[in-house]
Amino acid sequence: MSENLSPADFIGVCGDGIISFGSGQPDLPPPKEVYKILPNYSDFKYGLIQGNANLREVLAKQYPSSTPDSFVVTNGASEALDLTLRVISAKAGKGKNKVLLPKPYYYSYPHMIKFAGMEPVFTELIDGRIDFDDFKEKIKECSAVIINSPSNPTGRVESIKTLKQIEKITEELGVYVLSDEVYKDLIYTRENYLIKGPRVVTINSFSKTYAMCGFRVGYLWSRDQELVDEVIKIKTHTSMNTNILGQEMAYEAATKVPRSFIDNQLKIWEARRDMIYEGLVNLGLDLWKPEGAFYVLPKIKNPKDFVMEMFKKHKVITYPGEWFGAPDRVRFSYALDIENIEEGLRRVKKYLDEHGN
Amino acid sequence: MSENLSPADFIGVCGDGIISFGSGQPDLPPPKEVYKILPNYSDFKYGLIQGNANLREVLAKQYPSSTPDSFVVTNGASEALDLTLRVISAKAGKGKNKVLLPKPYYYSYPHMIKFAGMEPVFTELIDGRIDFDDFKEKIKECSAVIINSPSNPTGRVESIKTLKQIEKITEELGVYVLSDEVYKDLIYTRENYLIKGPRVVTINSFSKTYAMCGFRVGYLWSRDQELVDEVIKIKTHTSMNTNILGQEMAYEAATKVPRSFIDNQLKIWEARRDMIYEGLVNLGLDLWKPEGAFYVLPKIKNPKDFVMEMFKKHKVITYPGEWFGAPDRVRFSYALDIENIEEGLRRVKKYLDEHGN
Repeated sequence: MSENLSPADFIGVCGDGIISFGSGQPDLPPPKEVYKILPNYSDFKYGLIQGNANLREVLAKQYPSSTPDSFVVTNGASEALDLTLRVISAKAGKGKNKVLLPKPYYYSYPHMIKFAGMEPVFTELIDGRIDFDDFKEKIKECSAVIINSPSNPTGRVESIKTLKQIEKITEELGVYVLSDEVYKDLIYTRENYLIKGPRVVTINSFSKTYAMCGFRVGYLWSRDQELVDEVIKIKTHTSMNTNILGQEMAYEAATKVPRSFIDNQLKIWEARRDMIYEGLVNLGLDLWKPEGAFYVLPKIKNPKDFVMEMFKKHKVITYPGEWFGAPDRVRFSYALDIENIEEGLRRVKKYLDEHGN
Repeated sequence: MSENLSPADFIGVCGDGIISFGSGQPDLPPPKEVYKILPNYSDFKYGLIQGNANLREVLAKQYPSSTPDSFVVTNGASEALDLTLRVISAKAGKGKNKVLLPKPYYYSYPHMIKFAGMEPVFTELIDGRIDFDDFKEKIKECSAVIINSPSNPTGRVESIKTLKQIEKITEELGVYVLSDEVYKDLIYTRENYLIKGPRVVTINSFSKTYAMCGFRVGYLWSRDQELVDEVIKIKTHTSMNTNILGQEMAYEAATKVPRSFIDNQLKIWEARRDMIYEGLVNLGLDLWKPEGAFYVLPKIKNPKDFVMEMFKKHKVITYPGEWFGAPDRVRFSYALDIENIEEGLRRVKKYLDEHGN
């Protein structure tokens, strides 16, 4: 493993005695319903580039004033974001190629923006939340903004007031809003608030809500039909349909799994949230209390040394905050059971006892 | 359906009485072995971005002097091409952003090249084959070339002499070769010749050999480890792992399916090739005899009118040659059974009887 760690060094890595606070994926299995179709499955041909019709019909019932035409099913939320940024970049041209990012951010965002030929501009969060005064100045020079509430890595949920302010100013300025709401079903404090507007692109997936990360089924939804059509045009050439079987499994999740599954999951996440939050506070660390998603982002002295030594000596995977634009912090995903969280906390304590904090 | 047809109008389209010479996908099902793992499948977590280790180990046995590290499993050959072009574009910078394309070409190539921020340069095929005199002049101004032998849409296989000339000049010039060999197991005239070299990126998939189009499992292989690593870096952010279940199905195909499956498929394709080739020749059309893949590309008067009327009046899907850089031709995929090919030919005859040729 090189000194310059990257997410690819950790994603999918597991092994004896390793406790991973790394990858952001549920440890509990998907609902059994998604596997029920497998024994009799026999399709194999290309599907529609835009996504299976039955899945888009179900999604259209979940979003207000939408139709199946305004969705594109993608290889996870990642591809939805990538395709949207590529479309916006092509439309914006070289003149106005900036994308606003609240910081700390999900580590892929700046990379995706650059891969699409655009440039990230940052607005620093205050206490893990958007500083609208700074936001409203910086948004003027941008053609798009990525909002991620609940947030990976902060665990924070933006206030509805802020989200409405963002809706208003972006509509006035004609700026695209990429609203990455993959944690919308994992909020401890209130119902999700769906950001709306003529240039809003809502991005979501089946990965977090239904623990289906490995199957890579995400989607985007927008009232901007021209943008949706441009996304389909790119996807036709760059990946074609999303895996047809993954889509059928997602359809089963969306139609057969009772709401109680999601409610029960949320209770489990909340107990883990309490455990890790209080555990790290008791170790003397400075961190925000998560309101959604399953991450904490404590301040740690010499975070890169911490990440490296925790992995090599204590077999604990954590992610350096610098990947997320938070170089004085470390990200812990708490997507593992209470016993493992407790054991992980004991190992963190060992490190802190030795190195201080 | 608009006057400006695009592939997205047809892919995945089917219906009563429609005969589709459109989409390039096998009509016969995958080997039964690929479905056998489904009833007991239970994984769900993120996989390695580079691709499942077991699948890459099997692939490494199929390619000379390769290791599992030199492969990336992708969402079909499409994503492999897209990621490779994005890497080459970033490395080449703005100075040398041209990619050479033999013409006629697979319709996605020019789009992919442009989406990656590069510019296609064309070398006209002579009688469906590369004109090396023209090739060797034009390659000088390019940072990459896409070779597709056997070719979609021409059905032609390049001579080994030409392929060796291409190996030599591209190695001398340091030009990347993207060798799209997805039809390597569908050659009627000889064994496939694997293009080799330090800057060759071989692209392949399970879609054609094993009829697994809808599952979207492709891969790339290169001896240029730096390029492979850059591909992984982009994929980490733009789509993450390829669907884990699709990869396991591909692993079953690669390990459990006997060679006789592929040999038998080839016999079926060859009988169909003979049927459609002779049928169209007998209708007085001018076309190349396919040596591989499953396409014919006859010359047709007013090709766009032909495609539109064949679809609307005769319920036959064909693709206009202009998508492939062959505006005086029409592409027929013969991935359908003999009876349907015969019926399709009867309908083409009706059109030609009415409109002449």
